[in-house]
Amino acid sequence: MRIAVDAMGGDYAPAEIVKGAIEAAREYGVRIILVGDQEGISRELAKHAAVEPAVEIRHASEVVQMDENSANAIRRKTDSSIVVAANLVSSGDAQAMVSAGNTGAAMAVATLKLGRIAGIDRPAIGSLLPTMNGTAVLLDAGANVDCDVENLLQFAVMGSEYAERVLKLNRPRIGLLSIGEEATKGDKLTKAANARLARMDLNFIGNVEGKDIFRGAADVIICDGFAGNVTLKVAEGMAEFMLAVLKEEINRSIICRLGVQLLSRALRRARAKLDYAEYGGAPLLGVNGVCIICHGRSDARAIRNAIRAGASAVENDIVTCISASVRQKELAATKP
Amino acid sequence: MRIAVDAMGGDYAPAEIVKGAIEAAREYGVRIILVGDQEGISRELAKHAAVEPAVEIRHASEVVQMDENSANAIRRKTDSSIVVAANLVSSGDAQAMVSAGNTGAAMAVATLKLGRIAGIDRPAIGSLLPTMNGTAVLLDAGANVDCDVENLLQFAVMGSEYAERVLKLNRPRIGLLSIGEEATKGDKLTKAANARLARMDLNFIGNVEGKDIFRGAADVIICDGFAGNVTLKVAEGMAEFMLAVLKEEINRSIICRLGVQLLSRALRRARAKLDYAEYGGAPLLGVNGVCIICHGRSDARAIRNAIRAGASAVENDIVTCISASVRQKELAATKP
Repeated sequence: MRIAVDAMGGDYAPAEIVKGAIEAAREYGVRIILVGDQEGISRELAKHAAVEPAVEIRHASEVVQMDENSANAIRRKTDSSIVVAANLVSSGDAQAMVSAGNTGAAMAVATLKLGRIAGIDRPAIGSLLPTMNGTAVLLDAGANVDCDVENLLQFAVMGSEYAERVLKLNRPRIGLLSIGEEATKGDKLTKAANARLARMDLNFIGNVEGKDIFRGAADVIICDGFAGNVTLKVAEGMAEFMLAVLKEEINRSIICRLGVQLLSRALRRARAKLDYAEYGGAPLLGVNGVCIICHGRSDARAIRNAIRAGASAVENDIVTCISASVRQKELAATKP
Repeated sequence: MRIAVDAMGGDYAPAEIVKGAIEAAREYGVRIILVGDQEGISRELAKHAAVEPAVEIRHASEVVQMDENSANAIRRKTDSSIVVAANLVSSGDAQAMVSAGNTGAAMAVATLKLGRIAGIDRPAIGSLLPTMNGTAVLLDAGANVDCDVENLLQFAVMGSEYAERVLKLNRPRIGLLSIGEEATKGDKLTKAANARLARMDLNFIGNVEGKDIFRGAADVIICDGFAGNVTLKVAEGMAEFMLAVLKEEINRSIICRLGVQLLSRALRRARAKLDYAEYGGAPLLGVNGVCIICHGRSDARAIRNAIRAGASAVENDIVTCISASVRQKELAATKP
C-alpha cells in the first residue's frame, strides 16, 4: 500500500511530517510518497540515521498556504504538494492521501480530483473523540456549515460504516446531536432529521446532548458542520481551561506542588487521552478515495497516527463499504 | 426588596430551596417570599434554628412538574408556585422571581405575566461562564433554538447591558460565536449577524470560537439557543470527562493516591470554579421584570447565589437599562 503525504502542509512542515512518515513506514509496513519540495524533503530525510527504503519523494514545486483561499489556490497552483498528492490517489499511484495543510484546500482538491461517492451530496469530516469507554466519531466536524436533512442522513450512513469497518464497532450506535433527548427537542433541522433517521436501517439511538458525547453515549455523533466545529472547539477550550485552573491552584502551595510531582504521571496520561495528536487525522468521508485531514499543529506523532488511520481505511475498503451502504439504503443524492 | 422564590421547583425542593432562601435573606438583606405548599415549606423552615423574619410564605396549591408540557401547565395550573411567583412580580409585591423548576414553564410564565420589553422579540437566557480572567455571559443558552438575525442583535444589546450594569464590566466586549475568527466564517445566520453587529453602537469584537470562550476572549457571547445549549453541555461533559480520566489515572498507583491527597484542596477549588452552583441562576433577559432561572439540580448554595443575582439585577435596574438601550439603538421588534 502506498500513501501520499503532503510534506509541505502544516505548521511544522516539512520536518515533523517527514519524521512522522518515516516512523509510520517503519511501524505499519506501508510505503510513503512524500510530496513537496525535493530539496527540503531530502534535507529532512538526511537527518534520520536510517531511512526506510519504503519512503520516496515526489517533487512538487508549489505550496498552498494555510490562509490562502482554497478554491483559488487549487485552481492556480496545479503543481502544489496538496494537488499532486491528490493526483497520485486519483491515478492509482497511491491508495490514500494525508495532509496537515490548509483544510479547505484539502477538502476541495480531494472532492475535485477523487470525486464524490454516488449518493453523497457533500463529503464530511469525521473527527475522532475520546470517550469514557472508547472512541466516538463526530461528523460533520466543519466541512459543511449549512446542512439540510439529506446531508445529515448521508453523514449517518458514512459514520456508521466508518465506525463498523474501521473502528471495528459492532452495530455502531448513531446519535443525533441536539439539545434534549426527546425526539421533539432541537431546532428545525434536527427535529426533521430525527424523524427520518428513526425510519432508516441504522442503529439510531435518538438525540444525544453535548454532555453525553464524552460519556460514550453514542459511537457516531451526527450534526451539521457548525455545531460539530463548535463542539470540538468548546471541548478543546474547556480541557485547556481545566488544566490551567488546576495549575493555578497547585501553584498556590508547596504541599500542592509536592502532590503534583507525585501525580505528574497520571496528569500526563490523562492529557494524552485528550490530545488530538493521539487521534491525529480525521477522515474526509464521502469522497471516492481515502483522504485523511490533520490539524495544522500536527507533530510527527499526529502524522504517524494519521497515516495509520489512512492505511486502516484502505485495508477496510471504506469507500466501497460506504458506496454499497448508500445504494442499499436507497439514499439518493438530492437533485440540485 | 422582596424576591419571590418558587419553593417547589427543582430536584431538591423544597428543602434546599428553603435553606438557600434563608441564607440569602441573612447574607444579602433581602426579603424572601417562599411560594408553594404552606405546610411543606413550614416544615422545612422549622428545621432551621433561627429563621429570619425576612422570610415569609405565600401558599400555592399546585406544582408544575419538571417534565410537564410548559404551555399547558401554566394555563391549567393557575395556582402553581411558578405562576403565583410570577404574579407577585407582575403585581409589584415582589421585584424579582427565582425558580429551579421546569425551565420552559418559567420562561413561558415570565414572558406571559411580565411581558416583553418593547423592541425585544424573544427573551433569552443569559448563562454565566467562568473564564481565565473572570466571567462571561453567553446568550441565548437555550430559550430560542431557531433564531434570525434580529434576535441575535437583540441578544447582543441585552447581553451588553447585563455585562455592564450587573457584572460591572466597562465597555463589555461582544463576541459572536462562530467557527472561525474572520467575518466570512460561519453559517448563513452568523455571517449575516456579523455584518449587522459591526455597524451597531456596541463594542463588537467579531467572531469568537468555542476554544476562545474560556480564555476570556469576550465578555458577552452571542449565539442562537441551539449552539448556546450545545456549548454549555459540551463544556459540562468535557469537565466531567477530564475529572473522570484524572481519577482513573490516579487510582492506578498508591503514589498517585498519595499525590491526590495533597492535591485535594486544589482539586476542590478548581472544581468550585467550574461548578454551575457557584454561578447559580441565569437571568431571563428581555422580559419586563427580573426572572432568574436555576438548574433543576440546584442546591441551597445555587439558590442563594441565584437570589443574589436577582437582587443585583433589581438594584442595577437591568430592565430599564435594556429598555433604554433598545430605544437608543433604534432596534425595533420585527413585525410578525
